[in-house]
Amino acid sequence: MLSLDKVFDAQTVLKSIIRETAMVRAYGTAPDCELYLKPENLQITGSFKVRGSAYKIAMLSDEEKQRGVIACSAGNHAQGVALAATKNGIKSLICLPDSAPISKVEATKGFGAEVCLVEGCYDDAYQKALELKESEGYTFVHPFDDENVIAGQGTIALEILNGLDNIDAIVVPVGGGGLISGIAYTAKHIRPSVKVYGVQVTGAPSMYNAIKKGEIESLDAVSTIADGIAVKTPGENTYAIVNEYVDDIALVSDDEVASAILTLIEKQKMIAEGAGAAAVAAVMFNKFDLKGKRVAAVVSGGNIDVTSLSRVIDRGLRNSGRSTSLLIELIDKPGQLNEISRIIAECGGNVTGVHYEKGNTESVNGCFLRMEMETRDFEHVNLITQSLRDGGFKTV
Amino acid sequence: MLSLDKVFDAQTVLKSIIRETAMVRAYGTAPDCELYLKPENLQITGSFKVRGSAYKIAMLSDEEKQRGVIACSAGNHAQGVALAATKNGIKSLICLPDSAPISKVEATKGFGAEVCLVEGCYDDAYQKALELKESEGYTFVHPFDDENVIAGQGTIALEILNGLDNIDAIVVPVGGGGLISGIAYTAKHIRPSVKVYGVQVTGAPSMYNAIKKGEIESLDAVSTIADGIAVKTPGENTYAIVNEYVDDIALVSDDEVASAILTLIEKQKMIAEGAGAAAVAAVMFNKFDLKGKRVAAVVSGGNIDVTSLSRVIDRGLRNSGRSTSLLIELIDKPGQLNEISRIIAECGGNVTGVHYEKGNTESVNGCFLRMEMETRDFEHVNLITQSLRDGGFKTV
Repeated sequence: MLSLDKVFDAQTVLKSIIRETAMVRAYGTAPDCELYLKPENLQITGSFKVRGSAYKIAMLSDEEKQRGVIACSAGNHAQGVALAATKNGIKSLICLPDSAPISKVEATKGFGAEVCLVEGCYDDAYQKALELKESEGYTFVHPFDDENVIAGQGTIALEILNGLDNIDAIVVPVGGGGLISGIAYTAKHIRPSVKVYGVQVTGAPSMYNAIKKGEIESLDAVSTIADGIAVKTPGENTYAIVNEYVDDIALVSDDEVASAILTLIEKQKMIAEGAGAAAVAAVMFNKFDLKGKRVAAVVSGGNIDVTSLSRVIDRGLRNSGRSTSLLIELIDKPGQLNEISRIIAECGGNVTGVHYEKGNTESVNGCFLRMEMETRDFEHVNLITQSLRDGGFKTV
Repeated sequence: MLSLDKVFDAQTVLKSIIRETAMVRAYGTAPDCELYLKPENLQITGSFKVRGSAYKIAMLSDEEKQRGVIACSAGNHAQGVALAATKNGIKSLICLPDSAPISKVEATKGFGAEVCLVEGCYDDAYQKALELKESEGYTFVHPFDDENVIAGQGTIALEILNGLDNIDAIVVPVGGGGLISGIAYTAKHIRPSVKVYGVQVTGAPSMYNAIKKGEIESLDAVSTIADGIAVKTPGENTYAIVNEYVDDIALVSDDEVASAILTLIEKQKMIAEGAGAAAVAAVMFNKFDLKGKRVAAVVSGGNIDVTSLSRVIDRGLRNSGRSTSLLIELIDKPGQLNEISRIIAECGGNVTGVHYEKGNTESVNGCFLRMEMETRDFEHVNLITQSLRDGGFKTV
């Protein structure tokens, strides 16, 4: 049974394993409320997951410890289990689909786990893990639907309440529900007046649907940049806890998440992964009534692939007018590129790409010119567009 | 006169203004030593600069405070002075060249400063600041060559020594020398056995040259992605302190800095600006003998423009084989693009750009195809290149 005692016990057990991530006041991110971040992206292994795994493992019997643990994950849970097992001096085996990115496989090995690559998808890896659990006697460490795992995540609430007086609300990303279950259970038992809000993404609204419909259903598919919370089916225990203790759940879009990632980079100098930025996105885009409130948003993790990060930044720059791509239809005659370059330079745009193509233009002698450039903001984009039009060019 | 008492006094004064940034163990960044980061990129205003400015301002007489302060900077110093003045309830005026990025101007205003945009370059803004200092009676806050500013930066050494037992060395980025002067003076007075190392970039080696030559000279020009330490002339006070207390200075290249920025993103989930990553770069690329040592590297700031960040990431991905661009010479006939796409797809490359151009190929019917793609590592790049060659294509 989950209990407050368990959470306090977890806090003691975790002391030598995890970092107590210090709350950070997030200036300039959500003007309507007093926002603080609980930066679990700066946690060891880059995510909160290590807390639950480490407590779960610490609670195993000596015999269970001797046999070792097994888990199935391509992400934060894998690294959490690996580190927690290593710190406890026991063996861990992580089953991964063979399509998992090399970087994740390497990171998991780096924390001391043995990795078992399974042909197929996540479900195949999961089946394999269950088989090995049976045949080898490993203990399976569930990523969320386990009372000790939930108690471990609950230690975050202790740190939030301890680090911040008179807090009004805690906003938490939700995947399977382990993190928010631990936080909501703990926070509501210590200070019942604190609101606890959950956030899912529109591309993976499993817990959101369960709470709104009053029963658990599995999603057929999930699609989001927040892969850390792309869970098809909420846990049974976590569903029950969320239902009882969480005040509301809202959804954010992938674009809102991308915008939150960019804001965290620019204002807080922090990298969050998609799931990690979901709670901040919900605050930034006013999904809950937090006006004038003192709010803690949990930044649950920072393990985003740099390639994805690069895409998120590019998208964010485009969405905020700081880069733009103009398609210009022109008559194919000497001096045109020169004239266009001159206009853009005079307006202060910084050209980063030029593509020239024949195409289905009005005139037989027409062509398309695509100019990629760095700009200051949308006003600047408009200025450049207008100057090109004033110069007689047709932007498409 | 600089003294240890001053640094301790600064620590008390700064308590209500700054964040005490907690040291972070940097796993997986420099395998040969035990590396810790002092993350001043997570400092309020995104850089350590606020420490020196705030102490300088706090030490002004009531009359000086009433007249206000002036500074000249397009970067971290401007924001530090602005916030420090605001927190002390006094007026600040920051002179900036009118070419300064809008984001920096807005950030400076956001911390409560009045901004004076001066036509021309940095030197013009500096002249204007000196004029206004004379005519209006403002106190000029120097970015580095001032004992109170240096004492303020010295508080970082107190926090490092307090946060980390038995430390062997502190590695510090060097621009004008204010930061390293404060740190070296403080550390050497408290624990003389601690080594203090400075790091400059090859594109702006002013203090490095001064120390090696034994006299201060001004550089004609500086060019580096580490704009925060692109200083042409070291300070006189800082030169004297560095000469006396710093054990060695080394240079890192812009590519090494970019690589350190990427590593800090991937391993520590932190954004550092170029200057901020310089010390980490020096440790990563073995510029000092730190094997087996317990080392603190100061990450001095995180105020990097997202556009630059995006470029640094792209360059880092390319330098580590995680993105690549192949130029393929082929005979212009149907099915070629299909065949090439098939080979790349089979090898697991993810195409992100295709450019086709006629060019000076061997055959009259030849053309060039440029394929941009995401790859796993250099081995993967080689596999794709070899498969294309085996398929009869000529990569250039």
